Amino acid sequence: MKATIYHGPHDIRVETVPDPELREPTDAIVRVTRAAVCGSDLWFYRGIAKFTPGSRTGHEFVGIVEAVGNDVRTVKPGDAVIAPFVASDGTCEYCLAGLQTSCVHGSFWGDEQNGGQAEAVRVPYADGTLVRMPDAVAHDRRKHDAAVTLSDVMGTGHHGVIGAGAKRGGTIVIVGDGAVGLCAVLSAAKEIGVERVIAVGHNERRLALARNFGATDIFNSHEPGVGEAINQLTRGGAPSVVEAVGNQESMDLAVEVARPGGSVSFVGVPHNVKQAPLRPIFLKNLALRGALAPVREYLPRLIASLEAGRIDPLPVLDLNLPIERVADGYAAMDERRAIKVLLEVS
Amino acid sequence: MKATIYHGPHDIRVETVPDPELREPTDAIVRVTRAAVCGSDLWFYRGIAKFTPGSRTGHEFVGIVEAVGNDVRTVKPGDAVIAPFVASDGTCEYCLAGLQTSCVHGSFWGDEQNGGQAEAVRVPYADGTLVRMPDAVAHDRRKHDAAVTLSDVMGTGHHGVIGAGAKRGGTIVIVGDGAVGLCAVLSAAKEIGVERVIAVGHNERRLALARNFGATDIFNSHEPGVGEAINQLTRGGAPSVVEAVGNQESMDLAVEVARPGGSVSFVGVPHNVKQAPLRPIFLKNLALRGALAPVREYLPRLIASLEAGRIDPLPVLDLNLPIERVADGYAAMDERRAIKVLLEVS
Repeated sequence: MKATIYHGPHDIRVETVPDPELREPTDAIVRVTRAAVCGSDLWFYRGIAKFTPGSRTGHEFVGIVEAVGNDVRTVKPGDAVIAPFVASDGTCEYCLAGLQTSCVHGSFWGDEQNGGQAEAVRVPYADGTLVRMPDAVAHDRRKHDAAVTLSDVMGTGHHGVIGAGAKRGGTIVIVGDGAVGLCAVLSAAKEIGVERVIAVGHNERRLALARNFGATDIFNSHEPGVGEAINQLTRGGAPSVVEAVGNQESMDLAVEVARPGGSVSFVGVPHNVKQAPLRPIFLKNLALRGALAPVREYLPRLIASLEAGRIDPLPVLDLNLPIERVADGYAAMDERRAIKVLLEVS
Repeated sequence: MKATIYHGPHDIRVETVPDPELREPTDAIVRVTRAAVCGSDLWFYRGIAKFTPGSRTGHEFVGIVEAVGNDVRTVKPGDAVIAPFVASDGTCEYCLAGLQTSCVHGSFWGDEQNGGQAEAVRVPYADGTLVRMPDAVAHDRRKHDAAVTLSDVMGTGHHGVIGAGAKRGGTIVIVGDGAVGLCAVLSAAKEIGVERVIAVGHNERRLALARNFGATDIFNSHEPGVGEAINQLTRGGAPSVVEAVGNQESMDLAVEVARPGGSVSFVGVPHNVKQAPLRPIFLKNLALRGALAPVREYLPRLIASLEAGRIDPLPVLDLNLPIERVADGYAAMDERRAIKVLLEVS
């Protein structure tokens, strides 16, 4: 089969590798239909995060179950499924608590033998990991395409909104207009029903999409005094803030616009945050929540919302490429020509 | 009257100053009976935090109301009262939400004309700030002495425990054996009823006091591998952690011993924390809560507990001095000869 291999910074190649095989009785083999490139893939692509050359890449995919081990009960060959970006056993303390990212048997995709940007994937703990798509999603091309966002960015944006304690009718600030920030806007406005959704970014096209996703107020992060302007609008800050960038400026802004007693959830891997602004967090009695999203927990709900048309995250996938052109996809995202790349696999 | 004046690092003097007078109809004048020296006073004493020479010092005191303005309704001359370390109006959005430290009219003690380490204090917003002591506390010397801890350290320790989400029957780790850490142990064990209270410090005498306050397990923070040992004991960390020191090592340890999905509240002013450990906070889905304690909110409950004998924080006040010897008190705390100094004023 074809799979994407990391060879070094800015060097991603599709190569032919052996097909994956069942190893454990709890495994499934999934034939991938759609995959995606994630903003977090850019960390190793740019050489900022360490990643072993020769590793498979990709942690977002949907597809059709091809084979299952003897112990798998909830999916069967032919089922259309979504995989979260972490495999989880579904039975440990953390899985039962809805924190599948801390599963005692958890594993991320992307090692020497397994990655989501490929024609097939071996999925460990298939019962605890995979969630079936209903026919109305699997057989609707638009929704099937959109479903790949539920693997990560849509679930991550939603987790940020939940972690920020956002409530129906409330106010939230979302810092960042990347795919995760945009999905957070969508979650807040459409899934949770937050009344005032304030989006902050600096890319006009993306901010226009934020508006389409339900943002009620838009601020340009490059304009000076944006924090004061938001605090004026909200009369002292928002009770809920999502930080969806992962750099120092965005973290500082997120804390600045948080209302005393409020919550700031940061959903990006904090690669470029040297110092959390602890003093205002202390003085304002904020909760800073680290927020590696347990996407698996949200999948049933978000799949239902996708099926019902309550959320439509498809527009964040603004560049479609065949799997063979995955390198072009990384480059397009690296150069910010695309928000997020959908890979058409089969 | 006598009042304590800051002249510069390591230079604290008691001097004679004019008696305070009512300025606003919401003011009260309180004749101080007991005051205290706080660990946070050491920041300016050591020259680490900026503080204007000539300022009055002290933010912990109890006393007897001497005079009230025309608009004061809830206290009257002769009442024994406790003052929190922040004055608050009692009517704004934040006060009503129990976050009096963010009161829109809030003010800290310690300026050119007002400080708690003195014979009398002008208290703004007396109705929103002061809480009466019942006779059983006011007229019991031991409890009257102990009441001064409710101005700050006992309320701060309790806030840390609440902020860490501790529950009856649960598990908590408290990092720090200073007065606040010890009060957090007392709150967890006696006020909340946490079953496993793990105290971490490095002073044997203080750790023995932690044991008396109800700590079930004691760890020495200077021993290598203390984080791993706690994680072994708790089989993966505690859901609730209080960081009551305010330096990098204690913050790192607090995050290390927090269970995935748990909460770490930091109750010390983070003067010496250069970098919050954001990566484990992210990966473990922790909430890091800044925790400037709204002591005023907890006073009615903690006064009742003091009266009932449920909590007895008096042992943290291990050095009693007359107000005239306040400088000796600062020195004793600076040199760690005393946990916390009680000043006998009148």
